[in-house]
Formats: sequence, structure tokens, C-alpha cells
Amino acid sequence: MTNSTQTSAKTKEIFARRESEARSYCRSFDTVFSKAKGSVLTDTDGKEYIDFLAGCSSLNYGHNDPDMQAALIEHIQGDGITHALDMFTDAKAKFLTAFEEIILKPRGMDHKVMMTGPTGANPVEAAIKLARKVTGRHTIISFTNGFHGMTMGALSLTGNAGKRGGAGAPLDGVARMPYEGAFGPDVDTLAQIEMLLSNPSSGIDAPAAFIVEPVQGEGGLNAASKEWMQGIARLARDHGALLIVDDIQAGCGRTGTFFSFEEFGIDPDLITQAKSFSGMGLPFAALLIKPQHDIWKPAEHNGTFRGNTHAFVTARVALEKFWKNDAFEKDVQAKGDRLAEGLERIAATIPGATTKGRGMFRGIDVGSGDLAAAICGTCFEEGLVIETSGAHDEVVKVLAPLNIPDALLDRGLDILADAVKRHAPTITTMAAE
Amino acid sequence: MTNSTQTSAKTKEIFARRESEARSYCRSFDTVFSKAKGSVLTDTDGKEYIDFLAGCSSLNYGHNDPDMQAALIEHIQGDGITHALDMFTDAKAKFLTAFEEIILKPRGMDHKVMMTGPTGANPVEAAIKLARKVTGRHTIISFTNGFHGMTMGALSLTGNAGKRGGAGAPLDGVARMPYEGAFGPDVDTLAQIEMLLSNPSSGIDAPAAFIVEPVQGEGGLNAASKEWMQGIARLARDHGALLIVDDIQAGCGRTGTFFSFEEFGIDPDLITQAKSFSGMGLPFAALLIKPQHDIWKPAEHNGTFRGNTHAFVTARVALEKFWKNDAFEKDVQAKGDRLAEGLERIAATIPGATTKGRGMFRGIDVGSGDLAAAICGTCFEEGLVIETSGAHDEVVKVLAPLNIPDALLDRGLDILADAVKRHAPTITTMAAE
Amino acid sequence: MTNSTQTSAKTKEIFARRESEARSYCRSFDTVFSKAKGSVLTDTDGKEYIDFLAGCSSLNYGHNDPDMQAALIEHIQGDGITHALDMFTDAKAKFLTAFEEIILKPRGMDHKVMMTGPTGANPVEAAIKLARKVTGRHTIISFTNGFHGMTMGALSLTGNAGKRGGAGAPLDGVARMPYEGAFGPDVDTLAQIEMLLSNPSSGIDAPAAFIVEPVQGEGGLNAASKEWMQGIARLARDHGALLIVDDIQAGCGRTGTFFSFEEFGIDPDLITQAKSFSGMGLPFAALLIKPQHDIWKPAEHNGTFRGNTHAFVTARVALEKFWKNDAFEKDVQAKGDRLAEGLERIAATIPGATTKGRGMFRGIDVGSGDLAAAICGTCFEEGLVIETSGAHDEVVKVLAPLNIPDALLDRGLDILADAVKRHAPTITTMAAE
Amino acid sequence: MTNSTQTSAKTKEIFARRESEARSYCRSFDTVFSKAKGSVLTDTDGKEYIDFLAGCSSLNYGHNDPDMQAALIEHIQGDGITHALDMFTDAKAKFLTAFEEIILKPRGMDHKVMMTGPTGANPVEAAIKLARKVTGRHTIISFTNGFHGMTMGALSLTGNAGKRGGAGAPLDGVARMPYEGAFGPDVDTLAQIEMLLSNPSSGIDAPAAFIVEPVQGEGGLNAASKEWMQGIARLARDHGALLIVDDIQAGCGRTGTFFSFEEFGIDPDLITQAKSFSGMGLPFAALLIKPQHDIWKPAEHNGTFRGNTHAFVTARVALEKFWKNDAFEKDVQAKGDRLAEGLERIAATIPGATTKGRGMFRGIDVGSGDLAAAICGTCFEEGLVIETSGAHDEVVKVLAPLNIPDALLDRGLDILADAVKRHAPTITTMAAE
Repeated sequence: MTNSTQTSAKTKEIFARRESEARSYCRSFDTVFSKAKGSVLTDTDGKEYIDFLAGCSSLNYGHNDPDMQAALIEHIQGDGITHALDMFTDAKAKFLTAFEEIILKPRGMDHKVMMTGPTGANPVEAAIKLARKVTGRHTIISFTNGFHGMTMGALSLTGNAGKRGGAGAPLDGVARMPYEGAFGPDVDTLAQIEMLLSNPSSGIDAPAAFIVEPVQGEGGLNAASKEWMQGIARLARDHGALLIVDDIQAGCGRTGTFFSFEEFGIDPDLITQAKSFSGMGLPFAALLIKPQHDIWKPAEHNGTFRGNTHAFVTARVALEKFWKNDAFEKDVQAKGDRLAEGLERIAATIPGATTKGRGMFRGIDVGSGDLAAAICGTCFEEGLVIETSGAHDEVVKVLAPLNIPDALLDRGLDILADAVKRHAPTITTMAAE
Repeated sequence: MTNSTQTSAKTKEIFARRESEARSYCRSFDTVFSKAKGSVLTDTDGKEYIDFLAGCSSLNYGHNDPDMQAALIEHIQGDGITHALDMFTDAKAKFLTAFEEIILKPRGMDHKVMMTGPTGANPVEAAIKLARKVTGRHTIISFTNGFHGMTMGALSLTGNAGKRGGAGAPLDGVARMPYEGAFGPDVDTLAQIEMLLSNPSSGIDAPAAFIVEPVQGEGGLNAASKEWMQGIARLARDHGALLIVDDIQAGCGRTGTFFSFEEFGIDPDLITQAKSFSGMGLPFAALLIKPQHDIWKPAEHNGTFRGNTHAFVTARVALEKFWKNDAFEKDVQAKGDRLAEGLERIAATIPGATTKGRGMFRGIDVGSGDLAAAICGTCFEEGLVIETSGAHDEVVKVLAPLNIPDALLDRGLDILADAVKRHAPTITTMAAE
Repeated sequence: MTNSTQTSAKTKEIFARRESEARSYCRSFDTVFSKAKGSVLTDTDGKEYIDFLAGCSSLNYGHNDPDMQAALIEHIQGDGITHALDMFTDAKAKFLTAFEEIILKPRGMDHKVMMTGPTGANPVEAAIKLARKVTGRHTIISFTNGFHGMTMGALSLTGNAGKRGGAGAPLDGVARMPYEGAFGPDVDTLAQIEMLLSNPSSGIDAPAAFIVEPVQGEGGLNAASKEWMQGIARLARDHGALLIVDDIQAGCGRTGTFFSFEEFGIDPDLITQAKSFSGMGLPFAALLIKPQHDIWKPAEHNGTFRGNTHAFVTARVALEKFWKNDAFEKDVQAKGDRLAEGLERIAATIPGATTKGRGMFRGIDVGSGDLAAAICGTCFEEGLVIETSGAHDEVVKVLAPLNIPDALLDRGLDILADAVKRHAPTITTMAAE
Repeated sequence: MTNSTQTSAKTKEIFARRESEARSYCRSFDTVFSKAKGSVLTDTDGKEYIDFLAGCSSLNYGHNDPDMQAALIEHIQGDGITHALDMFTDAKAKFLTAFEEIILKPRGMDHKVMMTGPTGANPVEAAIKLARKVTGRHTIISFTNGFHGMTMGALSLTGNAGKRGGAGAPLDGVARMPYEGAFGPDVDTLAQIEMLLSNPSSGIDAPAAFIVEPVQGEGGLNAASKEWMQGIARLARDHGALLIVDDIQAGCGRTGTFFSFEEFGIDPDLITQAKSFSGMGLPFAALLIKPQHDIWKPAEHNGTFRGNTHAFVTARVALEKFWKNDAFEKDVQAKGDRLAEGLERIAATIPGATTKGRGMFRGIDVGSGDLAAAICGTCFEEGLVIETSGAHDEVVKVLAPLNIPDALLDRGLDILADAVKRHAPTITTMAAE
């Protein structure tokens, strides 16, 4: 009945006794982890797990990258700054310089970087505040199945009913529009949004901004097309709204390029970054702002942990190690293709299943949350950490580190395939009764 | 004209070019810091500064405590987990166990710990969401001069007009009440609040919660009395509201005890923790919840960086090193007295000035923001990092590390005294014109 | 250049001097009216106008119906109550009895009648308050091009951007859905709404109510089909929401039956009534409430003018005179057909024009607001009061009294046809340049 | 047990069967009224009641004033317009001219008149919309115990918890401030409001407007002093907010002058009018707007019943009959003194009771809602219609017609005195147990 030996079991008592019921992932992965390296997690009983979750895309470069470890240890040993509010530090200067040289300049981007506080919700909150200030408008357009965070502003944008229910209060200021495909493949959602915004009696107030994820990670790995994203960018421009791309989960290489929208030929006004932005999984987030919109007054938005200097150190190493040339990018794209093939093979064995996503941001819609949960549960027993997403938790989602060795990727896919084999028919049969 | 040599100047170009105008502290402390140890910051030019800001109370144990450094380096070198979402880890178990043994049990507290995400705004947002869920009510009572964060929910509670102006949208759901002394020493604000809540036509809806800082750090070092805090606790209980103590800036020993309300004999329903909670300045925050209110559903409030495992390591060291017995507490209280005396001496030289605060959380109300800014500016030139607070930035605020050596504390106070000497008369004269 | 002689002109000075710029209809119909009878208005210069506006459907039985006049005069001469708050009066008892006997019972309706205050916005505000109380939910679903009033609650439901702009504040608590045909004839809006409500990550919170006009008067005479209205009723029931039919403009016989939804086989939870409810154009409105939802506490919603007793008198006469049998209903339906034919003939002369609406609630979409305004302007000069509606004011709307003599109806249509002849080609040519 | 004979009883069945539970006054005055003249109501059983309620101040000139009756009958018989939306009519021109000549000009007022729709909530809603538009700000300051109506905007301003509870939704956008005396006679509420508005960290956002009743009718007959009202006017001016005087219940002579603030030397930006504005109890309301604030676009705020032409007729007669010279004003003031003396005599017999209000807008705070209800119940049995007000319904409120004959006034006061005699000691004794 238990997934772990006595050591873990005893350790877990403290969580049952003292940690809030809000805890969640630990309920699916019911063991106590102690070490992690690359794409492998190890629990206190020594059992190893391949990591197909990667901190929900916060560990795109794997656990404890040795170069980041070395740089961080050197920084700590040298009494480098740990916490500096938003004061100038050399570590921050070096990070910003690397980000400018390696990321922004080569992509022709003139954005400024706002250190917003280190969680993903921080740049989302900053973005909607700024968009409202810049436009003098109130309504933010967000999309079905979108996920943007849990603070009141970010939560108002988030679609998930369970999360919204936690607010205990109305979540206003948002007009909800259909994401590409939300009404099926034949409905032109862009045309519908255009009709609503062009109809002065539609009741949709002129928006301050559109906030959109190019791939909806929590929402079920819905990947928008280039045409649709360009359409949204055009709608924003035509209707005087800012375009906010929330690239928190899809960015930092997850789709094969640093930003998930690079192939789309769009130039977002505001771009959120978090999760893998520090490279090593440390809390770090930022908002990229087109210079003309950087109308903040000093300290108008602030926060205690804007200067998480450890994260500046590892983030710089990540940029220098992985993004100075296109080798890593090409590797990720190749690995994404390998993942796609593997998932296609597995999906083919499940009646009605389809694969979703792009790059290393993919999964299988197995048709029901119960089936997906059963599959992931078996995977965990067999040494694979993997989770679901989607409105009904019906998508088995692969978020492996981008540099996972092919052998481990394949091994993980094998575990997944076996779990599918074990559950898919049974549950299908049950559903058919 | 410049505060720094050529090295700093060149380094700073990247900030001017690429960092958002929202940046703030760096405008007051216009140099580039590179190292920090204990109570001393060092910039890239080798100049040293005594730190009377301590990361706005995020560095209560000083910079780079050697025991925390050692434990963290050991953790990193051993490939300890860095980021684990909210999965169980041994580092988290050890932290929770230490927190239970060293902090909660000795104080007779049965609170559960919710890892809310690592910024101060996270537990504040979680607290108001939970209070609204628990009570089915909407209104949160917050106080004049209160500061609780910058995300939309936390910002609605925050009093500061500049911060609120950043929202670009109405901030609703809050009834504002006067903090102790807000209407002068002779007005019984408790009685007024009681009258409003007992009058069914007052227009103040039955509140979900009161959120209060026992000492208002940003609001000007207003320190509530035991009687007033007990009165607020009683009002909350009598009117079916939860009591949220926001102990983010005042907690972790800043006032001389671990929680700032320990001497008040109150038992808050919800307590926020952040800033110095990690011990080392790493992002880490939590909400303490009375068990009967822990009605969260799994994942109803979540967040990517709830499992900042580096912070669990250093936070545990901080508890074990400083709070296992009352030695540190006594030291802080003694140092607080020393600080109080020093500030009294200085305040006596400024016409109309008064000292404020308690413990190691003190300052001087110099009567005007211009004067306070001039004083702090001169201090910085002389090697002291010190900031203002208060509605008009009229309070020179001392937030030194709690373990600052007496000699450094005195040296800092001397610099402050000299700066006061230089500015106080001149500006007073100007004001009199 | 002026439409009126010296007498009117002088009279109008007081309006220019003292009436707020918010005034509107008087700008289109720039004369001073003094008398009205049946379907004819007369101005102070003795010029007569056929009334194709009928107080925006507030004068369905024409001006100054002689039986209502007689009953009202008798009431006044006999010192009958004029104003009675919501005290019991015999006039109110007689009205309610007539409403029960003549309207509710024959239609098998068990609704209770709430006197909400006499404007259309009053029952709309009462309805959304009640729906929120009954369901404990917040979101009201309203529709594109819907119009429900100008007070803050009603305005939040209203689609028109110009009206919404008057709020000076966000209008929240509403999810906007497409009315039938809003995305063109081929889009199944019911299916889309169903998808949004069934998707737990759509971001559309479970609704307290749907509020819908069976024919959208201000929105451009969009007439919903039986299937669509039944679909909305089903969606409301399936998702635990109340169905509010706003029958303020479409009710009281405008579509050929007393309620506009009688042929649809639906049983709305809440029905708003106003405009022609008093029969004579006096302010009077009510909310019809299914008994199980009548959970109001005494005075929980009140209002000074709930007891406009003059209106009770005339409203009773209207019911007794026009609705005791089906003669009037049949007349209206026949007249509606006559109107439809006339409008079809006219529309056929305008490139691209279409007719809209049903019963005596019809108009022509002439394709542009400029053309519609020009047509109505010429009509007014020629003695016909007629207005536009629609998101772009592109619909010439006929709202004649339901009992307008055929000769007058035809005469009015002739004036309209002539005006169309004069403007349609010219403007079409201009638009083609 | 019943207050009425068989006739009434049978008539009342229809109300029990078909009228919503929201009904209220009819519960206190449990008979069926049929006629009314001057200050006397008559029920269907022929029993007469002196009217000390006067439609909550909607019948300041008594019931069925013969001159208003005559003018209205003449208007109806002559086929005068009944309903004209906001088109120009001669009846409206005559009313506006009379209002300008008789009311505005002699008082040096340059306000424009906005016909907002006929209920009191309409000008209140229009006022806050306009204030927000004019200032670009969101917060409206309203006061403890204030009552401003039941539509969502007006209700947000209203203090009463029972009414607010009807909303079923948060009522935001309002900062609540203490009315004069709200914290007892010794607290300077003006100084406290000034402190809150001048403190940039108070959390009270810069207000769009103050809305205040010079006498709080529903709130318990709290009458503000000249000094306090001037203080509020000054605070509004100093802080860039509009001053809205809600004179709906206190206006039209109730306090002895046409506007209740005439002796205060203030010049409100916006003034609401309703209740007795039509003279005869017909629905009619307006917003008076300083010309510089009349920035409405045409139809930006509209409403079906803005042109209740019957009300224009009677309103004009009321102005011409009662306000052309100061005779009526002087009579009202004298009658107010008579009332005051009578109430003082009665109050002296009740332990702890005090009189409140001014002019003909007065009452007795008897100390408990139970006692006040018992007194009013007995009064009704004895032929006097009189109601309570105040947060705890603890004030017996006299709202007699302003022209009530002295004999009737005295007779009513005698009934009141007898009822007090019957109840006061008993209930006091009970309370003392």
C-alpha cells in the first residue's frame, strides 16, 4: 500500500502533522526525495526516479548542473551578495549583460528587464498593472484554459475553476476569450474575437491587454499556431491593447527556442519569465518591457526578493553555457522530435488518444483524467515522475529536462508505455459499460 | 558628483540601459555592491558600508552567516535537491521538524505551515483568500499606513498611495481602519472600530479578517501597544473575523522575540512569515494557519517555488543556531536598548523629532521627508546604508542585523549623528522661511 | 434649417439653458410636443406626427387611451391614493387581481409580483441581486448587444460601449456570451456557451443567472428563435443558474403575445416588466418571481415609488381592455404581418438591406448608421417620429402603438419609403467611393 | 388580532398570494388604503389615519392637493402628453422655467437639470457616474448611516446592513467615513477625515466625490451642523472631489427651506432631488449639476421614464403655489418649532430619550427598536401612521405633510404621547431585568 520504506514513512509524519492541506504534488509522488542530478531524482530510500516533471519546467537544464553548482558555491564561498533588494550588484550586472548579449541583441529585442519578485505571479501581476497604466483601460483579455498564477491579479486571469474557487471572492477585470481550438478545429476563434472587439455593443470593453501562453502548459498542452499568435498580436495592435506573452512555462528553451514565440514573427509588448529563468530552479522571475511602455515610477512596483543574487549567478551560467550558440537549441529540437515519435507510438495504443504540444513540451491526451492518473501512478511506482494537465487532467504531460540523455528519455517512455498498456484497456472497458 | 569610481560607473551602464525604471533602492545607494559579510557590504571599488537596512529585515542574522554558508555549500555539493515544487524532501522535513520543535511547541502554537510561494505577498494573498473562504465574507479590514505587498490582493491592503497608483485599477474588498495613534494619542481607535462594526448601518460589512502588523515597518515604525493588539484580537473574535498578523518585517526576532506579538498574549488565526524566514536572505515565505482553518483543498493555492530547498537548509540552520535557547533573544533585546538610547540621543538634537519602534526595529521621525532623505544621503556617502520609511518618508529607519557587533552599531549611529548635525539645522531654517 | 416655428424656438431656449447635455431624443426630434392621442403626436405649432417610436414601446396602447384617461381622472377626482410606498391599496389589489386572472392564470404561471420601483432598471437590479442571493454565485451571463438599463448593476449587463463609458468605473460581475447569430448564421452559439460552461478551465465561473431579451430592441431588433431560447433555458437549468427574461421592451404585446416568450415553451425564473406595463406610459415596473426564489426578506429591496397608484389604475384598465380575450392579440399579429410586408417592400429598394424582428417589433437594417439617421431625419420633417437602433445605429426601428390604425401605419410606411428613396442611393454611392 | 374588518381582510388575500416577500410597509400598516386627502389617509373600511409618514417625505404638500389635482386632470382631459422619453414638451418647458425662476435664480444657483429617471436611485447613480467621469477617480466617500438607494451603485453608498445584504455581491468603490457625531459628540470627525485624506499612506484613495445627506432620514434623523457641512464642502474642494448633496428626503422644504442646505452657505457640485419633487407623489427625480461638470455626452445616461409629464405638471404647480414667496417657508419653520416642542414634551417622559432632526424632519430616539416598534404599532391602531428609522430602528420619526393643520399635528402628537405612555415604562422595566 505504501510507496516507500520505513525511513520515508517516518519522515513523512512531520508533513501530515504540520504542513497545510494545500500541499499537492507530494500526494502524487508519495516519497521523500533527498538528492537530484541531471534528470534523476533519488529518495531517502535510495530509489531513483527519472524526472519527467522537471519542476514543472523550472529545471529545463536538469538538476544541479555542475557548472551552476560550481559558480554558486564559488559565489557563496567568496561572500558574494545573497540578497540585495534591488540594489546594484556585480552579479546582477553580469547577468543583465549576458542576457542582453546572448538573448536580447541576437533576437533584435529592445526590451527592458524588470525584476519583479521571484515567482511567476510577480511578472504577471506587474504586467497587468503596467498594461492598465499604459492604456488607461481596465479589461485584460485572457484565454480559456490559461494559467497565470494564484495571487489575486494573476488568478483573475487563470481559467481553472478549482484554483479560482480558492479566491473566496469575485475575480473581475477580465474578459475571457477562446484559445485556438477551444470550440473545435472548425471554429475561427480569431474571427470571433475580432467581431466582439469591433462590435461597440458587444459588452466587451476596449482591452488593456491580451495575455496569452503560446503553449498552455497547465491547460492541456494546447499549442497555438503561428497564424493564430500573429492574429492575436494583430488584434492587440488594432485595438490599442498591449500583447503580453506569458512565457513562464513555455520559455527558456522548452519549445526548442529560448522564447516560445521566436518562430512566430511577433514582438510582444510584455513578456513574463520565471521557472527555468535561474537555470537551477532558484526563485527568479522578470518582466520584459518594450521601452516605450516602461513608464513605472521608481518603486511603483517593488518586492523584497527582486535581488535573489544566487539566481543571478546561476542564470548567467545557464545563458553562457546553453545559449551562446545554436547547439543546444538544435539538440532540444532533435530531442523534441524523438519525444514526439515516442509519444505517437504510445498514443497509437490508446483508443481515441492524441498527442499534443511542441518541442520538449508534449503529452498525450488519453481521454480521461482517471486513466491519466492511473497511468502516472503506475509510472511513479516504476520509477518515473510524470504528471497530468488539462481541464480534466486528461493529458499525460512530459516535461523532462531539455538535456535529458536519449537513453533516459527512452527509458522513461518505456515505463510510460508499459503503464499505458496496463491501464488503457481496462479503463476503456469500464468507460464503455 | 558621483559616489563611485570608474569601475562602478561602467558597470552601472547596463542598468541604465536595460533595467526597468521601477528600480528604486539602487537610486539611493548608487554604487555596485559585490560582497557582504555580517553587517558590512562592500562595493566593487572596495568601499565598505555598514548595513542599517539588512535587506529590509530580510538579513536579520547578517550577510553570509558562516554556518548557513557551510550547510548550503554542503547541500549543493552533495547534489541536494534545489527545487522540488511541493514534493516531500528531507531538507523540508528537517526544516519543519526544527520549526515545530524550536518555535511552535515552546510557544504552545498548534499552527500548520503552508508553503505559499517565496515572496511576502504570497502568504498575504493566501491569508485573505483563506479568510474569505473560511468566513464566507468579503471585506478585509486593514489599517492606515499598513504595507502588505504589491500583488493585486496584497496591494488592496496596502495603504501607500504611490504603490496603489501602480495598480491601474480599483483596489476593492478592503475597509480601512485607523492604526493605533493614527488620529493622535487621544483618540481611542479601538472604540471607533467597535462602534463601526456594531452599528448595522455603518456601511462596514461584517469582515472576513483583520490584517495587522504589530509594528508598521514601511508605515513609519508605528508600534502597537499590547492593549491595542489585544483589542484588535478581541474585535476580530467578537465579530466573527479571523485575525491575520502580518509578521513579515517584524518577525524572526526583529522586535526581540521570534514573533513580534509574543508578549501580547494573542493567538492569531493566520500569521505570515517571509523576509528573514530563510535566515540567509533567500526567498522563502509561509503562512501559519490554525488547524481549524486549514480547509484548503489540495493545490487550491499553489506555486512553483514553494519548495525552495536551499532556503529550507539555511532556515533550519538559523533556527538551530539562534533560537534553541533564549541567549540570542536576550542579546537582541539588549542591543535594542542600546539602539534606543543611541537614537534618543540623536533625536534630541533635532527640533521636534521623536523616536519610534521597538526592539531592533527603530527609527527617528525627523519631521520631514526632505530632511530624512538628506540625512540618509550623507550617511551613504560616509559608509552607512540606511533608509527612510513613513507616509512622508519622514522616519530614518534602523534595520541593522540583529547580531551586529556593538562597535559597528555605535559606528553607524555616529555616522547618523554626524549626518543629522550637518542637515538638521539648515533644513529646519529653510522650512521656517 | 429649423424644424419649428418661432413659438417652439422660444420655448426651447429653456432647455438649452437649463437641461443637462445628457438629453438625447430631443436632439433628433427637434420640436416641442404638447399633445398626443392614439398614434399621433402634436407639437406646439400644431404640426402632427405619426408616432413610430411609442415611447420606446412604453405606449403600446397609444397615447391617452380614453378608458385609461377616464379611469385615472375618476381616481384623481375621488381623492384616490396617488403615492402609497408599498402599503396595501385597493387600486393595487385590483391591479394584482386583474394581473393574476387575466395574465398569470391563463398562462399557468405561478410567479409572484415584486413591485421594485418604477423604472426598467429597478426589476433588472432586483433580478440580479435575487439571483445572486438564491445561488450564492456572482457571475451573471448577459449577451452581446443586450440592453438592460443604466444603473450600475443594470449597466454592467448592458453591451453598449457609449452607455458603459458613462460609468466612469469598471463594470464587473458579468460574463458576456454571444446572442444567437452574433458570430453569423453558421455559428452555433449555444454549443459554444455549453462548451465554456462545461469546461472547468474555461475561466467562466458558474453563473448565478442568464439574462436575455427574446428580442433585442436597442441591440438591433435581433429576434431569438424558439430553439435558441429553449437552449438558453436548458443551459441555465443544467448549470444551476436562474433564467431571467428581460421583457421590458418586448413584453406587453409588442411581439403579438403578452410575454414575448409565450410560444417558446419556457418558464423563466424571473421576468422583468416595465415600459408599457402601466398601459398609459406612467412609470411602473415589476419583477415576476417563481415562488421558490422569493426569498427576499421584508424591505431587503425597496424603493419610494413602488406604489405609483395612478399606474395601478391604468395598468388594470389596460389588462381588462386588451387582454381579457385573444382579439387584441390577433389584431396585433395581423398588424405585425402588415408591417412586415411593408418593411420587406421598402428593404427591397435598399441594396443589402434586411428586415429584422417579429410581431410589431420590426425594422430594417439599412447597412449604416449614417443612412439610417438620414432616413429618420427626413421622416421627422415629413411628420413621422421614428428612431434607429443597433450597435451602429444601422437599423431603422418601427415601434408603433400596437393598435395603430392600418391607415396610419400605411401612411407612416409611405413616409419611410419616400425617405428611403431620397437617401438610399446617394449614400450608397458615397460609401462606394 | 386583526387590524381591519372583513372587507380589508378579503382584499388582502391577493397580496399574500401574489406579492413578493420583499413588501414591507404594508406589514406595519396592515390595512388597505383607498383614499387620501391632505394629511389624512382612509382605508377601505372608512377608518381615517393621520399621516405622519407622508410617503417618506414624498408627500410634503399632503395628499391630492386640489390645485395639483385640477391641473393634472386638465392636462389629461386635454390629451396632454403623458410619456415623452426626453423629448421637448411644453409641460417640461413650463416646469423648467418655473424651477429656474422660482428656485434657482433667487438662490443664485447656476445648476443645470438632468432628468435622470424618476426614482431617487437614478440621480444618485447618475451623480456617482458623473463624479467619476469628471475626476477620473473611483472612490466615493459616503457616510455612516447614509441611505442613498437600492440599485447596485446607490446601494454601495448605503450603510444599512440589511439592504446591503440584498446585493448578494460585494459593494465596492466606496470609502466609508463617520457622519458628524458618529463617534460621539466629542470626536471631531472632520479632523479625522482630513487626516485620512492628507496621509498618503492612509489607504483611502483620492476620492471622486463626497455624497452626504444634510439630515439622515433613514439613518436616524441625524442633522449635520452648518460647521460640519461647510467642513465637508471644504474637504471636497481641497482634495479635488465633487460634493454631492443627496437632498432626496431632506429637500423640497422638509427642513424649512427648499434645499436643506440653504443656510449653510455651501454650493454643492451635484444635488439629487426626488420624493416630493413632483409635488403630488408621482415618480420624478433629477440631478442638479454645476455647469462645468455637465460633461455628459448625449444619451450617455438615459432612461425610459425621464419624461413623466404628469409629474412636470404637478411639480410646476407645487413650485408656483408654495415657493413663489416666503410664506410657506415661514409656515413650515413655525410648524417645525411646534413639532419640536411637542416631541420634547413626549421625549421628556421616556427615560434616556432625545429628540433629533430639524424643521419638519424630526423624531425621538427612544433608545430601542423594540420600544419604537411598539409605540408605532399602537399609534397605528389609534389612527396614526408613523414609522421608525435609525440603525436599530430606535427613532420614532415624524414626517408629516409640511402643511398639516396644527390641529391635526397636535392630534397626532397626542396619539403618539399616549402610545409612549402605554409602552415606555413597561419596556424600560423589561430592559432593566
